[in-house]
Amino acid sequence: MPASIEIWAEQIRAGDVRAVSRAITAIENHDPQAEDLLERIFPNTGKSFVIGVTGAPGTGKSTLVDRLAAYYRAQGNRVGIIAVDPTSPYTGGAILGDRIRMQGHASDPEIFIRSMATRGFLGGLARATGDVALILDAAGKEYVLVETVGVGQDEVDIVRLADCTLVLLVPGMGDDVQNMKAGLMEIADIFVLNKSDRHGVERLEAELEAMLQLVPERNGWKPAIVRTVATENKGVDELASAIAKYRERMDSSAERQERKIEHWKWRLLALAGEAVLKRAVSGADGEAALNKLAGEVANRGMDPYAAVRELLARADAARKNA
Amino acid sequence: MPASIEIWAEQIRAGDVRAVSRAITAIENHDPQAEDLLERIFPNTGKSFVIGVTGAPGTGKSTLVDRLAAYYRAQGNRVGIIAVDPTSPYTGGAILGDRIRMQGHASDPEIFIRSMATRGFLGGLARATGDVALILDAAGKEYVLVETVGVGQDEVDIVRLADCTLVLLVPGMGDDVQNMKAGLMEIADIFVLNKSDRHGVERLEAELEAMLQLVPERNGWKPAIVRTVATENKGVDELASAIAKYRERMDSSAERQERKIEHWKWRLLALAGEAVLKRAVSGADGEAALNKLAGEVANRGMDPYAAVRELLARADAARKNA
Repeated sequence: MPASIEIWAEQIRAGDVRAVSRAITAIENHDPQAEDLLERIFPNTGKSFVIGVTGAPGTGKSTLVDRLAAYYRAQGNRVGIIAVDPTSPYTGGAILGDRIRMQGHASDPEIFIRSMATRGFLGGLARATGDVALILDAAGKEYVLVETVGVGQDEVDIVRLADCTLVLLVPGMGDDVQNMKAGLMEIADIFVLNKSDRHGVERLEAELEAMLQLVPERNGWKPAIVRTVATENKGVDELASAIAKYRERMDSSAERQERKIEHWKWRLLALAGEAVLKRAVSGADGEAALNKLAGEVANRGMDPYAAVRELLARADAARKNA
Repeated sequence: MPASIEIWAEQIRAGDVRAVSRAITAIENHDPQAEDLLERIFPNTGKSFVIGVTGAPGTGKSTLVDRLAAYYRAQGNRVGIIAVDPTSPYTGGAILGDRIRMQGHASDPEIFIRSMATRGFLGGLARATGDVALILDAAGKEYVLVETVGVGQDEVDIVRLADCTLVLLVPGMGDDVQNMKAGLMEIADIFVLNKSDRHGVERLEAELEAMLQLVPERNGWKPAIVRTVATENKGVDELASAIAKYRERMDSSAERQERKIEHWKWRLLALAGEAVLKRAVSGADGEAALNKLAGEVANRGMDPYAAVRELLARADAARKNA
């Protein structure tokens, strides 16, 4: 490992913003140096409290994250924010990023904000988000807030990363609790009823309470419900209290450890899968070989299982030559 | 391969509903027979036209899928519908499934409807959806409609499966085009402005047109925009025409083939990754070994890269013993 990596790691440990930014870019670009760096800083991680914030578009996630970050800053904590955008198979990235909306914090060096727009196979976005969280952790952020868009596999994968997951709902948005999927229902440690000055908040809360009766409690935790109006900074203190209470309960039980083990199981498998695939398409003709196999399968000249056997044989050969 | 698999495959080719259902269950349960079956029916696939339907919760996806299916049925086509629910890491599944809402077709044997609620690592949901689409393809469905929820990695992965992707938007839902992510913008082959009798549809269309100016055309295709009121069956004919036009253009260009190769590249890598992971945790002590490694990493007693090397060595050993 080159000495420059250790210097870089040291800068990250010291919380240097440019070194952190550079590390995130390396992770997004699948730069091989990123792995060396992550290996280097790994022993300095495990101290951040990671809060996942999820909910449908229009529920006000970015504003809430913004206010929660300001709250933790006022308490003297350092905060990292990761805004995860959906991956595009074509160009990636957001047309109007959250970065723009959150410029209010741009002058505070102890709030680090980064939008992610990583592409890649096989849960690459969640994996990269996990790696970025490790960097922020090593850089001494007491709180890392991860904002994710929409409702899907992403959210589920990113939940594996978070110590505490907030699910945002908004009164009268058309997705009543009735239509809410079990997945979203069950990943919530805390429900946030944002824009709670809107008509229908009582009904939303009543429906949510009724629905929660149907879901088994996880280790005795019944998800808290907190009302906020993030744009007016209302309810943010109460939300922070609910998070602190959840954290206390988690730390005093085996659950945090269990959750971390689950997270790492998933993460190790993802890393292992990625390592093998990298080998399978390695070499000068690797990508061409994959294209050829895919073309034959697309034309029904070969079945996918025979093609996979060939890919794995390639990975094996690459390993032996390594 | 047991003779019973060939009988099962033959029943699927004949369009037998129970055989198809049983196959989907086998795919969802990761039953090893599913792989044999898929290998068997693979040469009979490649004929369906797969339409992906995506959009935020509340945009009316299920109703639109329902009406589009009825349209194709009236033209004498057989139709398969796959409703993809977000995976829950805890129990999986939807509290109120789309199955219930679509019971109108339950008595028509030529419309096959199935909700998916598959869990698993590494893009398992998209992979399983792809396998189910192959089964419906072999069963002779001319159209396979895949409905996905939300906006995220799921959608992007499932797009790789579809020949044509519809993105639904609704006037005044809070997620203006301004906030729409590039990912969603760029996966759309056709935009559907559903609930277009609502106030604000002109503004939505104008914003969308303006935004489309910013996105590079893909092979000369500018996404069509179609207005519908699915609940009143309005605009469904126009939508079907737009889909037919898109299909014609695609078939007369290299794009369909390119898209199929891209899809299979992704699919082969996912299959290969899965095969390796299965080996890594195989054997009587496989799961225990993974738990132990994850626990050590969680406690910072080992770094993730060392743990991955150990996992891959396990996969290698399992291969040699196979």
